[in-house]
Amino acid sequence: MRVVSLLGSTGSIGTNTLRVTAAFPDRFRVIGLSAGRNISLLCQQVEALHPEVVSVSDEKSHREIQSHLRQRGYGMSRTRFLHGLEGSIEVACHPAATMVVSAITGAAGLVPTYRALEQGKDIALANKETMVVAGRLMVDKARETGAAIIPVDSEHNAIHQCLRGGKRHEVRRLILTASGGPFRNTPKEMLRSVTRDEALRHPTWRMGRKITIDSATLMNKGLEVIEASWLFGFSADEVDVAIHPQSVVHSMVEFVDGSVLAQLGPTDMRLPIQYALTYPERLESTLPPLDIHRLSRLEFHAPDRERFPCLDLAYRALRAGGTAPAVLNAANEVVVEAFLDKGLAFHEIAEIIEATLDGHGPSDASSLESVLAADRWARNEALALAGPGRRAQA
Amino acid sequence: MRVVSLLGSTGSIGTNTLRVTAAFPDRFRVIGLSAGRNISLLCQQVEALHPEVVSVSDEKSHREIQSHLRQRGYGMSRTRFLHGLEGSIEVACHPAATMVVSAITGAAGLVPTYRALEQGKDIALANKETMVVAGRLMVDKARETGAAIIPVDSEHNAIHQCLRGGKRHEVRRLILTASGGPFRNTPKEMLRSVTRDEALRHPTWRMGRKITIDSATLMNKGLEVIEASWLFGFSADEVDVAIHPQSVVHSMVEFVDGSVLAQLGPTDMRLPIQYALTYPERLESTLPPLDIHRLSRLEFHAPDRERFPCLDLAYRALRAGGTAPAVLNAANEVVVEAFLDKGLAFHEIAEIIEATLDGHGPSDASSLESVLAADRWARNEALALAGPGRRAQA
Repeated sequence: MRVVSLLGSTGSIGTNTLRVTAAFPDRFRVIGLSAGRNISLLCQQVEALHPEVVSVSDEKSHREIQSHLRQRGYGMSRTRFLHGLEGSIEVACHPAATMVVSAITGAAGLVPTYRALEQGKDIALANKETMVVAGRLMVDKARETGAAIIPVDSEHNAIHQCLRGGKRHEVRRLILTASGGPFRNTPKEMLRSVTRDEALRHPTWRMGRKITIDSATLMNKGLEVIEASWLFGFSADEVDVAIHPQSVVHSMVEFVDGSVLAQLGPTDMRLPIQYALTYPERLESTLPPLDIHRLSRLEFHAPDRERFPCLDLAYRALRAGGTAPAVLNAANEVVVEAFLDKGLAFHEIAEIIEATLDGHGPSDASSLESVLAADRWARNEALALAGPGRRAQA
Repeated sequence: MRVVSLLGSTGSIGTNTLRVTAAFPDRFRVIGLSAGRNISLLCQQVEALHPEVVSVSDEKSHREIQSHLRQRGYGMSRTRFLHGLEGSIEVACHPAATMVVSAITGAAGLVPTYRALEQGKDIALANKETMVVAGRLMVDKARETGAAIIPVDSEHNAIHQCLRGGKRHEVRRLILTASGGPFRNTPKEMLRSVTRDEALRHPTWRMGRKITIDSATLMNKGLEVIEASWLFGFSADEVDVAIHPQSVVHSMVEFVDGSVLAQLGPTDMRLPIQYALTYPERLESTLPPLDIHRLSRLEFHAPDRERFPCLDLAYRALRAGGTAPAVLNAANEVVVEAFLDKGLAFHEIAEIIEATLDGHGPSDASSLESVLAADRWARNEALALAGPGRRAQA
């Protein structure tokens, strides 16, 4: 029986995680949930699971969920209700939890995930920003406490599977596949006028808004390159990207003997989630299998680094090291939000991230404080660059 | 240092094996060679390698190679020259050999390979007929003596690699890929009039004549299904076939959780040979790597079992068990030779194999004698069926 705390229970990964744990009631017990402001969905989850601890984003939601549940006759004594960062840390660190599913989008998931690692809990990691911002810290802490970090991201999950085909020194490179996003074939000049709704229309995966925009800019792949570098211990030169519009091959590993192992599967996140939750075992899945005979066409080509400069910005940050990836990630979160809510133009996303990186002096990332400080600095910087002042100039 | 005996040194697998061993002189020593009648190539190999024992097919070749080498000033005392089945058994069983590369096409490789297994030597197996004819015997003997059988066939080699991604009970099925051969798109009625030369024109792999015809009929894939069943311990229902004209994905494994692992690589047999020779290690290869970015189109579809009845004949023989696969294989060897040399029509290949299977009563395959008897019976039967009598009727 694995006892699971789930950070980000109402998001896309969170709800899929609960479908997986519900499919194996003898294997999993969900002891803690942490979510944001989707109180009605969280209420349903609490009623179904009776978790010992639940945390929401703020005081208002905290009051709201308790009053909702009380009205619906939920036995309130079963569950402790908390809120804020402290609340999600308590969920992550519940003494009985042996595994934490880290699925809070963005840097907000970092601290609770790190605290869980400190206590030696295994992490099913869906929050790539955690590794981008604090890869060194995470990897060192996991080594120190003996905790495992199993990636849930379909690409890293694929690589985790393919790496079983050899030893570390037998690997030549990792090849992350990318769908190419909705603008894969959009000419450069037209990228200046694409809309938010166009950017949100991902061709193959249904995901949250932030990650969908990151897919459209290829920043998602850039963040994944950084994540892969830390998770598996490869340099920037050893992590490659291939555009693969069909999203059937989730990623590949090339070995020194020239063999390439690839992992394929349906585009359903329950697959990598289940793998991460059950590793090193594989359990029977009830999902419809991949129909090999209907894979009529699989394509692979090199990414267009000129049209999608975010990919190279990520490589630049990875090579710069220290807090540069944290700065990249924070600036990206700010500009994606500005693109989604404040009418920032699509091409400005990369421009502002680049300007933020340009303004960042090298600094080391050896403590949670230093990466969080870099994160704060970059948010302010990017916010200022994305503000009305700049856009008036443009 | 691995000490290698090579059965079938002048064939396509044999010469590629020697290119691999030559690339790693510190790793491999070739101590024995066995070949057929290609004396001039065998002479070169002997001069380059100074093997302790060499065997050729018959007395005439035996005299010929010695006189050739003597004329060229080869130090004859270095090498013992033998011939026939007894000769290749001595090559396979050289006391110093730790690994035998079994690359004699057809059932002729069976006995020496089995004898090597009896002595606990690891086998790099390129001779699929060995497993088809005597799978149970081979597998039982390997288990008894602790010898490993590592497949060289690109498909089984791919599966061997993909199986590292999970445990036996976590595998749902094996998926062997097939190029589909030169007649993949040839309409059924035209298959009656295809020529030998058309059948020898394989679209992606350059191989020997026998296996090239087997690719055109899909019997090659059928034999591989039987081989995979024995090598990896899966039933006929757990081994599937997908036509994949590009021959880039060499085979796949589907796990119970829905994940599929695939092995990709250049279409160069040195890759699987090297893997088999160096397993469980992977060594750096100097071959040009697979250019992922240029895989513009990978297709997969179900085989057409009506146009290529040999595939179902193989499944039928596998399900029947006992000596049925030996009969299938022997009949196939006879009719392929008749197709190549005696003007048998392409569609008659399957017809005669089917008639031979129809005439075979069930019998068990628990001794080398019984499978060899079934092999002899089937050869005679197929020969009679393929003889002038039948063809006059047709």
